[in-house]
Amino acid sequence: MRARLLVAYDGTGFRGFAQNEGVRTVMGVLTDAVSLVVRQPVDLTGAGRTDAGVHAWGQVVSGELPEGTDLDGLVRRLNKLCAPDVAVRSAEWTHAQFDARFSARWRHYRYDVWNGPTPNPLIVDRAWWVAQPLDLDLMNAAAGPLAGEHDFASFCRRVKVGDDQPEKSLVRNVISTVWSRVDDPCGAEATPRAGSAPQTPALLRFEIRANAFCHQMVRSITGTLVDVGTGKIAPDALRGILEARSREAAGQVAPPHGLTLWEVGYPQ
Amino acid sequence: MRARLLVAYDGTGFRGFAQNEGVRTVMGVLTDAVSLVVRQPVDLTGAGRTDAGVHAWGQVVSGELPEGTDLDGLVRRLNKLCAPDVAVRSAEWTHAQFDARFSARWRHYRYDVWNGPTPNPLIVDRAWWVAQPLDLDLMNAAAGPLAGEHDFASFCRRVKVGDDQPEKSLVRNVISTVWSRVDDPCGAEATPRAGSAPQTPALLRFEIRANAFCHQMVRSITGTLVDVGTGKIAPDALRGILEARSREAAGQVAPPHGLTLWEVGYPQ
Repeated sequence: MRARLLVAYDGTGFRGFAQNEGVRTVMGVLTDAVSLVVRQPVDLTGAGRTDAGVHAWGQVVSGELPEGTDLDGLVRRLNKLCAPDVAVRSAEWTHAQFDARFSARWRHYRYDVWNGPTPNPLIVDRAWWVAQPLDLDLMNAAAGPLAGEHDFASFCRRVKVGDDQPEKSLVRNVISTVWSRVDDPCGAEATPRAGSAPQTPALLRFEIRANAFCHQMVRSITGTLVDVGTGKIAPDALRGILEARSREAAGQVAPPHGLTLWEVGYPQ
Repeated sequence: MRARLLVAYDGTGFRGFAQNEGVRTVMGVLTDAVSLVVRQPVDLTGAGRTDAGVHAWGQVVSGELPEGTDLDGLVRRLNKLCAPDVAVRSAEWTHAQFDARFSARWRHYRYDVWNGPTPNPLIVDRAWWVAQPLDLDLMNAAAGPLAGEHDFASFCRRVKVGDDQPEKSLVRNVISTVWSRVDDPCGAEATPRAGSAPQTPALLRFEIRANAFCHQMVRSITGTLVDVGTGKIAPDALRGILEARSREAAGQVAPPHGLTLWEVGYPQ
């Protein structure tokens, strides 16, 4: 019987998502825990392979479980076995053709930037600290040309393929992009203050949805847009960067700890 | 010259606030760092002595610093020395009579509760996980009688005093209390879902402001109101609990990791 799990995790303590002998990964922890509960080896598939340090709120995982498995009981046991940095939000039976990765229609990622003159210890593992003031309107305008179907080679870390294999396509369809100011995030109220801090600190959030993402694509796009926000890259440069199809054309790659896989969409 | 620092910290890695030989405390780290930068021993005072595991966004610290100290440079150096779990948001000169503790007119604390059937790994060190559904209206109604000047003995851990010393007053003036639902907290969007999670998870936030708080007062009040929210304590019981002036009358004490000292108020 095919099951579907909704999984959240704090990526800080993991060396990435996919199972990897000898290092602690999200899928390693989850696969061991599920196998222990159902008393047989299981093979799980995730919707998005997040990098080391990247978090998830709505990762989706699928796999075959023995018929008759009590899913409510499974969720309870997994949440004891996987705490505190992995949680299973829900588990349900699904149709035999469901595959967390290949059935997904879109992925929604969030990237949080703490923009202020001093760091924020309350979200230090959740947001990238950028001290230089960022122009939100400029970043939103610059992101415009990313929407639609493009070859994202300029924003993707190439996966090495053998000489005799065709290069994988880096064409992706970006559905939406938006930067916003989060008014009252956890530990980040923007209280204007007298003294040595002339700039009002704020949490800035980038939300991007696409049919799929290639490796480091969200982090590379975010880093490039932050370079626009500080004035290092011109706001109308994004179209040219896309057309260059070269990583050298893009800006910096944002660090992993500000990124969260927020939600994955499937056909009803 | 008297200086005033605005300090934020993640309390997870500290054995409390006040300096204490042999253990890592917020004031220990901060005092060592300031002394190192100004090249002489300093004596600092904090507005609120937070318990081990309690966080702060707006802790205020005062002390004498050598005349001519470059406060902008001090802030930059402290943020390098104290990262990642302590940050100095600003530093300014103030009048000679200013004392972070005794000049304070009010303290504002926040307590975050993650209320859902499964834990939330993204805020595991920031919010208390309560699985049983909480009735927000009931908790708000129950908190009403706390406002005003009362003897809070039922909610305070007594500080031991010698036999020949008078017992310290536990009379405090609570200015405001409010519970609210945080719509879009960091990693905690309330997405209703089919499957094994019938209850919509949510971040519930308790904000309380008072002239001052006695030891464990916010945590004891929060724990008691959560007991109201689950139906364990009647919503009209708070007046009687206050009048009992006995810790046995109150409910549970909420754990420290959901609590944050948010802001401290001073006369203009």
